[in-house]
Amino acid sequence: MLLVEATWKEIESHLATSRAIVMPIGSVEQHGPMGLLGTDAMCAEIIARRAGELGDFLVGPTLSLGMAQSHLAFPGTISLKPSTLMAVVQDVVASLSNSGFRHIVFLNGHGGNIATVTTAFGEIHAHRSLQQDPENLNLVLKSWFDLPGIRKLLAEIYPSGHGSHATPSEIAITQHAFPHAVKQVALDPQTAPDGGFSDAHDFRRRYPDGRKGANSSLAKPEDGARLTEAAAQALVQEMAKYAKA
Amino acid sequence: MLLVEATWKEIESHLATSRAIVMPIGSVEQHGPMGLLGTDAMCAEIIARRAGELGDFLVGPTLSLGMAQSHLAFPGTISLKPSTLMAVVQDVVASLSNSGFRHIVFLNGHGGNIATVTTAFGEIHAHRSLQQDPENLNLVLKSWFDLPGIRKLLAEIYPSGHGSHATPSEIAITQHAFPHAVKQVALDPQTAPDGGFSDAHDFRRRYPDGRKGANSSLAKPEDGARLTEAAAQALVQEMAKYAKA
Amino acid sequence: MLLVEATWKEIESHLATSRAIVMPIGSVEQHGPMGLLGTDAMCAEIIARRAGELGDFLVGPTLSLGMAQSHLAFPGTISLKPSTLMAVVQDVVASLSNSGFRHIVFLNGHGGNIATVTTAFGEIHAHRSLQQDPENLNLVLKSWFDLPGIRKLLAEIYPSGHGSHATPSEIAITQHAFPHAVKQVALDPQTAPDGGFSDAHDFRRRYPDGRKGANSSLAKPEDGARLTEAAAQALVQEMAKYAKA
Amino acid sequence: MLLVEATWKEIESHLATSRAIVMPIGSVEQHGPMGLLGTDAMCAEIIARRAGELGDFLVGPTLSLGMAQSHLAFPGTISLKPSTLMAVVQDVVASLSNSGFRHIVFLNGHGGNIATVTTAFGEIHAHRSLQQDPENLNLVLKSWFDLPGIRKLLAEIYPSGHGSHATPSEIAITQHAFPHAVKQVALDPQTAPDGGFSDAHDFRRRYPDGRKGANSSLAKPEDGARLTEAAAQALVQEMAKYAKA
Amino acid sequence: MLLVEATWKEIESHLATSRAIVMPIGSVEQHGPMGLLGTDAMCAEIIARRAGELGDFLVGPTLSLGMAQSHLAFPGTISLKPSTLMAVVQDVVASLSNSGFRHIVFLNGHGGNIATVTTAFGEIHAHRSLQQDPENLNLVLKSWFDLPGIRKLLAEIYPSGHGSHATPSEIAITQHAFPHAVKQVALDPQTAPDGGFSDAHDFRRRYPDGRKGANSSLAKPEDGARLTEAAAQALVQEMAKYAKA
Amino acid sequence: MLLVEATWKEIESHLATSRAIVMPIGSVEQHGPMGLLGTDAMCAEIIARRAGELGDFLVGPTLSLGMAQSHLAFPGTISLKPSTLMAVVQDVVASLSNSGFRHIVFLNGHGGNIATVTTAFGEIHAHRSLQQDPENLNLVLKSWFDLPGIRKLLAEIYPSGHGSHATPSEIAITQHAFPHAVKQVALDPQTAPDGGFSDAHDFRRRYPDGRKGANSSLAKPEDGARLTEAAAQALVQEMAKYAKA
Repeated sequence: MLLVEATWKEIESHLATSRAIVMPIGSVEQHGPMGLLGTDAMCAEIIARRAGELGDFLVGPTLSLGMAQSHLAFPGTISLKPSTLMAVVQDVVASLSNSGFRHIVFLNGHGGNIATVTTAFGEIHAHRSLQQDPENLNLVLKSWFDLPGIRKLLAEIYPSGHGSHATPSEIAITQHAFPHAVKQVALDPQTAPDGGFSDAHDFRRRYPDGRKGANSSLAKPEDGARLTEAAAQALVQEMAKYAKA
Repeated sequence: MLLVEATWKEIESHLATSRAIVMPIGSVEQHGPMGLLGTDAMCAEIIARRAGELGDFLVGPTLSLGMAQSHLAFPGTISLKPSTLMAVVQDVVASLSNSGFRHIVFLNGHGGNIATVTTAFGEIHAHRSLQQDPENLNLVLKSWFDLPGIRKLLAEIYPSGHGSHATPSEIAITQHAFPHAVKQVALDPQTAPDGGFSDAHDFRRRYPDGRKGANSSLAKPEDGARLTEAAAQALVQEMAKYAKA
Repeated sequence: MLLVEATWKEIESHLATSRAIVMPIGSVEQHGPMGLLGTDAMCAEIIARRAGELGDFLVGPTLSLGMAQSHLAFPGTISLKPSTLMAVVQDVVASLSNSGFRHIVFLNGHGGNIATVTTAFGEIHAHRSLQQDPENLNLVLKSWFDLPGIRKLLAEIYPSGHGSHATPSEIAITQHAFPHAVKQVALDPQTAPDGGFSDAHDFRRRYPDGRKGANSSLAKPEDGARLTEAAAQALVQEMAKYAKA
Repeated sequence: MLLVEATWKEIESHLATSRAIVMPIGSVEQHGPMGLLGTDAMCAEIIARRAGELGDFLVGPTLSLGMAQSHLAFPGTISLKPSTLMAVVQDVVASLSNSGFRHIVFLNGHGGNIATVTTAFGEIHAHRSLQQDPENLNLVLKSWFDLPGIRKLLAEIYPSGHGSHATPSEIAITQHAFPHAVKQVALDPQTAPDGGFSDAHDFRRRYPDGRKGANSSLAKPEDGARLTEAAAQALVQEMAKYAKA
Repeated sequence: MLLVEATWKEIESHLATSRAIVMPIGSVEQHGPMGLLGTDAMCAEIIARRAGELGDFLVGPTLSLGMAQSHLAFPGTISLKPSTLMAVVQDVVASLSNSGFRHIVFLNGHGGNIATVTTAFGEIHAHRSLQQDPENLNLVLKSWFDLPGIRKLLAEIYPSGHGSHATPSEIAITQHAFPHAVKQVALDPQTAPDGGFSDAHDFRRRYPDGRKGANSSLAKPEDGARLTEAAAQALVQEMAKYAKA
Repeated sequence: MLLVEATWKEIESHLATSRAIVMPIGSVEQHGPMGLLGTDAMCAEIIARRAGELGDFLVGPTLSLGMAQSHLAFPGTISLKPSTLMAVVQDVVASLSNSGFRHIVFLNGHGGNIATVTTAFGEIHAHRSLQQDPENLNLVLKSWFDLPGIRKLLAEIYPSGHGSHATPSEIAITQHAFPHAVKQVALDPQTAPDGGFSDAHDFRRRYPDGRKGANSSLAKPEDGARLTEAAAQALVQEMAKYAKA
């Protein structure tokens, strides 16, 4: 069930049977010459919503904006500072916890969010650790590409050229879900350089078209369908742990 | 054009012709026994995207979460504190301004956001006012129900029972766009009481089913279609002011 | 009774009979070639103190500084950032609420404060909404020019040339109260242009002498006396709602 | 000249001859059974304004609210948290510095403000220390009772019973300036105990009527007049250091 | 060279030849019945200082306090909230960068710091990404147990019972360096349970003596010596990358 | 007992007999051509640890970094902003208070920390003052040079040339404790000028080699030994006040 398409009375009923929810979280940031700016938010939402159809749990609204500072030198990128994203995660958790949720699973589509969301969890727990015996609260962060079985599947589909940004896998997932938005663009070089970076100036100097290690042109909608299904099923398995109210 | 479905190179090209963008902003909060939790975010997104089809301007990702503190006593509500929403708006504006946008129009679906977004604009300008001569930045907040002509249309469609929360108009817009999520629920009383409130405890004491002044059952999808079209056209007119790069 | 001229024991006694207080809030900002920098704080204080003589309620210390960022390009303006003013309002409310006050009415003299003070109230309520059942707290913001009957009176006294900044009405109120500080200055043009603005740079470009839409030279002390009395009486009516302890 | 009674053009002219300003800062907090809640703000304002008549310098609006946390267990006390007062001081300094002031002298009436205002200066300088060569900014904090000669005068007028809170000297200054607000209250004991404290609970346990070490009943308006004049003259001397533009 | 044992003139000279520095960072938190509260800070300092003897680079003061919220239910733990630790890291980097350092390597002794320090780096870069072309700044976080070769060495020395908190390796390092503080305590069970946790209440419920997965009694000073030397050499290798000024 | 060399069980036992702790706090900042960057942190740690040997109380980890903004124009200085140091002090106090400590004595080595630490105490108490009757918490700040008898001893050892920064006394204490780090540097002039300052730019302009009023060359290790012992004994006396649990 999608939280945004439910009424508060439906949520109240649902909470009597399960106190778990999936919150998709992504980013709006450049994904090279072929990838959509919304790729990370789309992937998280597509997989979470598909999992919500396969399993019986609640899927909340997608947190579209993430921590994307290193992409700010490419137009269209919209980044929250880490401190802002932490505040958002804290408020989301406070609201859901106040509603009665006890297992809040952030399904993440952007590697750059991992440290920040983990740190936000730490901030929430730090406050609780100084309180008198609060009710337990289980905060979970799972990136779709780290769900069980997915790394192996990625290696199988993309023996080379997957890389770490504007990857063919994430682009494939959006191609499958948004066929009208598939871009045909020649890439040069075919596979981009990979490595580290610091801020947005440094990123753009090192990775002039925005890709990192990726040959985005390997993306095919049918692989996107396969990845979506595999990740959704893995997420259903994860959520089964939190099934009891 | 939807920013999330574009590449950074497409945004770069677009910025050569126009430096304006619409950012839909809503809320995820209870909307009474019939209204969807996502109503406010949906209305803003539906109208902005329709306007983006009618006109030639960019529509950014929807800021789904708003300032909904007074609804927190109803499960499913997810609220950002005002200070958090201000941080989000500041970061969004900083990112878009860094990309080159100069006219940033927030299309709003939730009355409770107005003071906070206005205050965020004040904070942004307060920093700029102490800087040496920064490039001009035009920040605009428009609620769809305050666009030219809309109040008059609402009075015509709903001579009574419109109210101020869980209104038939906002529910109608979502019914038209999400027909699979229309809820059939008996309301008692037909029209809810209206008035003021302070925090969420006070709100729920005064408005036990969540509606304020509204007879939500007046909502009809065909009126939603009409309202969407009218608001979208009004927004196209608004954006025409910012057409030049 | 003026809180600043009372002892804590007198306040303790007063709280046994009434738990309401008026807090004047203004701004120190340019008011054109004729208006005093303290105009907004003075108007709020003058009206609140006169009302406190007519009625039987407590008037707290004036919050002289407000959110005046758009006036910072004119020397003498002292502005709090919105986030700072929010912190001040939160601390004032926490102190007064801790003393036992339950109806805290901010009487405002500056339009630019409205969004920020409203947002501060939202922040206060947002924290309370996540607490277990706190005692009710009624926060009210009233600008003197929005009190019942005042807009009509302004239209009557100033059929034209009132404008929106450095208005003859606010200057008249200060002329009546501070006759030694009346300024005789020629205005050119007689009536200033009106419209929108963003930051202080933009404001000064558009409104070179600081006035917005106003013909300040229409100000007369006797009109100030009349406006003061009318606003004070309207405030007495407002406070009557909160008379019971 | 009082800044609040001047126009921005008058301030602009003044800045051509002097770039110094006095900002009175006080507190609104209990001052025992006889002392007014506004005592600290009043003393700072009275002395600063008298000095402004004797000398030729600008006096800004009084910052009435200070850091008064330890008095919060007595009704009527209004305290800013240290972090809030720091934000206020930072914004005041940013505004005045932006106007062109270079010597900003806070004339203080409340011992409890000293650490916080000093820390706010540190925060301001900490930001400037990391900037490239900013124009010099001279921030000064002077409590009226620490001005040259005043401690000696206090010892002379009050050989005993002066104490450290609700002192006869500060009450005398307000008695002279606000004769209509003089309170006649029996004190028991005549002289209150003195010592340390932590929070407001601790303060009220130790000092049940709010006084600390003081025999407030020694206050006489004529001593208030003498103290006001002496402190005002000492402030005029202090300001002479900053006379040049 | 130790920064704290140098004068500013010596640092100035050093910066002419190298712009790199190592900052040890640890935590003060419970380490089970045998481990010292200072274990994490000690390990980082011991290894960094030994590396500074082997190589020719600067070692800064140890940041002893880290993010230890999950250990707060055990007395003696001193934790910084993530937001506080982020502020500390930001200020340290601002100071060092202002001095002229360009490669700032945090040598970490506590797994719980990793997300927070990474997030602090993100916050720093986020500000730089919105600036005009700042000089490049290379921020590096290395935990001693993740330096090249160390995981392999740990597996060799501790085929089982190493665990993840109060590990024999970290205790061994402190035993070698602080022989007077070696504790002889019987452990029950020999090897503690391992797994996840949320806040401090949850941690103590799951891990009653504070160890996680570890058999601390495997610690021997001679293994501590070997680990110190191996980690110090690996750090010397890492620093060689940043040798040029 | 050193907290960092104890286990949590030892701290638990200790808390049954005493609820007091000393936290050394210093700074890492330039101390002229002869003084070590770590001087202030070293002095606080040396004296606190020596006192911990003489008396029977707990000594916590040294907070090495302090508020050193005015020294930032000399390389090697690492400063926390006042707001950051306040956050650190607040977190340290929250952790120790949560462990059961009730008397927390910061032994300070840097004059520039005094206002900030005092302000942090105010912030902590401000929150407590608005709470319902919290358990009492005694926060104490003592600079070693302000302990009873020390000023007199300083005047005796250094009849002239002591000054206020890079003083021979603090350098002597470090010379005694760290003989390998004694620096032989010619000073010119022998005694530096003294006076006020604002930010780091201003400080360096006025005090080009970093000393303020001091003839650092008067420092001798044997005087350091004497000062250490005197200050440690004075601290033991201070701690005796808090001996009971």
